[in-house]
Amino acid sequence: MVERISLTTSQTSGTKISTNGASHDREKLDALRGQLPAVTCTRYFNAGSNGPIPRPAHEALISQATADLTMGRCDLAFYGKRQGESAHLRGTIAGLFNANVSEVAIMRSTTEGMNAALNGVLWRPGDEIITTHLEHICLFAAIGSVSHRFGVTVRTVNIGDGGGDVLSAIAAAVTPRTRVIAISHVQWTTGAVMPLAEIAQFARERGILTIIDGAQGAGQVAVDFHALGVDAYCQAGQKWLCGPNSSGFMLLRDDRLGDFRTSYLRYGTFDPAGYVVPPPGAARFEMGETYGPAIAAFDRGLEWLRDDVGFDWLVARNAALGKRCIGALKTVDGITIGTPEGNMAGMVCFNIPGMHPKDVSDRLAERGQTIRFVDQRPSDATARISTAWWTTEEEVDELVAEIADLAKTVQS
Amino acid sequence: MVERISLTTSQTSGTKISTNGASHDREKLDALRGQLPAVTCTRYFNAGSNGPIPRPAHEALISQATADLTMGRCDLAFYGKRQGESAHLRGTIAGLFNANVSEVAIMRSTTEGMNAALNGVLWRPGDEIITTHLEHICLFAAIGSVSHRFGVTVRTVNIGDGGGDVLSAIAAAVTPRTRVIAISHVQWTTGAVMPLAEIAQFARERGILTIIDGAQGAGQVAVDFHALGVDAYCQAGQKWLCGPNSSGFMLLRDDRLGDFRTSYLRYGTFDPAGYVVPPPGAARFEMGETYGPAIAAFDRGLEWLRDDVGFDWLVARNAALGKRCIGALKTVDGITIGTPEGNMAGMVCFNIPGMHPKDVSDRLAERGQTIRFVDQRPSDATARISTAWWTTEEEVDELVAEIADLAKTVQS
Repeated sequence: MVERISLTTSQTSGTKISTNGASHDREKLDALRGQLPAVTCTRYFNAGSNGPIPRPAHEALISQATADLTMGRCDLAFYGKRQGESAHLRGTIAGLFNANVSEVAIMRSTTEGMNAALNGVLWRPGDEIITTHLEHICLFAAIGSVSHRFGVTVRTVNIGDGGGDVLSAIAAAVTPRTRVIAISHVQWTTGAVMPLAEIAQFARERGILTIIDGAQGAGQVAVDFHALGVDAYCQAGQKWLCGPNSSGFMLLRDDRLGDFRTSYLRYGTFDPAGYVVPPPGAARFEMGETYGPAIAAFDRGLEWLRDDVGFDWLVARNAALGKRCIGALKTVDGITIGTPEGNMAGMVCFNIPGMHPKDVSDRLAERGQTIRFVDQRPSDATARISTAWWTTEEEVDELVAEIADLAKTVQS
Repeated sequence: MVERISLTTSQTSGTKISTNGASHDREKLDALRGQLPAVTCTRYFNAGSNGPIPRPAHEALISQATADLTMGRCDLAFYGKRQGESAHLRGTIAGLFNANVSEVAIMRSTTEGMNAALNGVLWRPGDEIITTHLEHICLFAAIGSVSHRFGVTVRTVNIGDGGGDVLSAIAAAVTPRTRVIAISHVQWTTGAVMPLAEIAQFARERGILTIIDGAQGAGQVAVDFHALGVDAYCQAGQKWLCGPNSSGFMLLRDDRLGDFRTSYLRYGTFDPAGYVVPPPGAARFEMGETYGPAIAAFDRGLEWLRDDVGFDWLVARNAALGKRCIGALKTVDGITIGTPEGNMAGMVCFNIPGMHPKDVSDRLAERGQTIRFVDQRPSDATARISTAWWTTEEEVDELVAEIADLAKTVQS
């Protein structure tokens, strides 16, 4: 039942699928789009913020929420039921991304996972973290918090658009005090795919931990956790995986569990004098009550992506649409491209010189095209297109035509 | 619009309301029960685990979830909308429990708040925490985690059933290294209401922080945060406040904000070299994406409790039903009572000697009565009744009759 999926590198250069509107793919796509009501409300080019919710996921939510209302949450069996649902979700995630079930922690966001992992390191003052200048604001915040509390030095490497030799840039920043490399899988302001497997191997040989911000990762590109070799991989549910807001997970390698301590802790065995043994596995990092209906919705949505859409198919299609988009956009006058074409997947970042990216986004929204802009230092401000698999080739072409038309208004 | 509610001490001994079935109260109760479908599915005596969900809260959930499905979460206005909903919820909470809005952090559970507060203290090895032997397992786990990581000594005070001189017992454990007193508002295995205002005053005079586990607090008893004088008050949404699972909040005094550092952090202002200033106020401790539909449901449910039920009325009724229950139970042969009658609210703990509390709970479930049992060291195992306001006087009497009948089966 569970599809094993191939490595990061394969979805940008590997399996070719028909993207020229071949009738079989189009029939499949039309049927899938019928399960995503939101994609007909706008031209949906913003998977990088939130994906559309599949109807089966919504139905799972409603079913559970209605049971909560009418049957109550009163009896003790309720807890067992909810624990079973969480266990099932961990199993779904483990199967999809080639992790052991014991390596899965259910999280509410990428950032929660990044905080759990970063705070899990037993820091000594003067230890160092390496990151890049392209990272998400929430990763900078989490790193900054750790830096303040534990006296950790942050080395932020400028990696340009992320299309160059990222590994060498990181390697040059390593010192004997380097403990952690914290970096995105896919950069949110350029769409560059980072060479995670190479970084992980480099780090492991030197006893450095790798903690990955996968917010734009799984669901945009293929993720095989064991093959990547990273130590912690933190993922948002609500973006490319079409989950509810407040869904996500952290994958933490079994052989690194002892390198990450709990900061927040719920259950375990303990005595009141303060001795405590956390629960086994990565689930020890889960915090707070789960909301059962949302857990069910996330799980059902992942199953739908796995069984009805297919992860090989969707990551290949994300990348093919991205190539189509950037290829067309390159030919447009008055546009600059921020995405490294040789090292991308389903995101295309661009600017119209003379127009702020927010205005680009707003003008396109008036034309029925929903992209987003990002304007966060130290990254350059940019307009960003997510070419997720649910968009059609015609929609991509139409978007490019609208951008070309918009660029003309600046030039004239 | 917002009701200001009175102190802890008043709801057990203060305002008297009619609980003898006076027609006005009964009409009101019947109407309110009509909004709580779950209370007709069983005799609902387990508010201490999860409360019934009000229909208006469920409708708010469905409305938001359906908007997510059909309108999508694609455009940037979505973020502003969700931030507005969280801000509104903080305002509702602040108004209900007499806190400043800046003192409210939205949490997923009591335990998440307790972890945020406990990890927020800048511990030095050898510092001490005082707690009691009656606390919840998750508080012991959080304290234990802090103890391990930071070399903190835990002093666990035996306070019997919690009906005696708790303040003196705690005071006797204080040393010059005491930094924190961490204790429940209402004890989960005896129902004893702790003298928080007195403990808070004692602690403040000595520069000791008070961190309160309010899981069985707000919604069972009155909570006036400023009048109580505690530093951090952590609350679950899904119990006496009838919220969805994964709801709750932490109240953190403005004048103590500097005493608690963030461990997990999302937003703020920062630079990539590691300097970071968290957002203002207690909301800096919020972690992870919120699930908008659940936020809306929690908020709408609290408004319903405030406007249609009334907090003064409900806390008085919780206590009156508790007194009715314990008064009747005392007269039953073959029962021991674990709740201190002079110091209780809406929870009654008891045992039938010769029958394990789990069996008591199971046998009563077969009779349509849903209570729960708690069997966690170092507390004694016990059966526990929550006499929440939505139960009728007749239901309480019927439950006591069933317990009496069950006790006879052991004696015979």
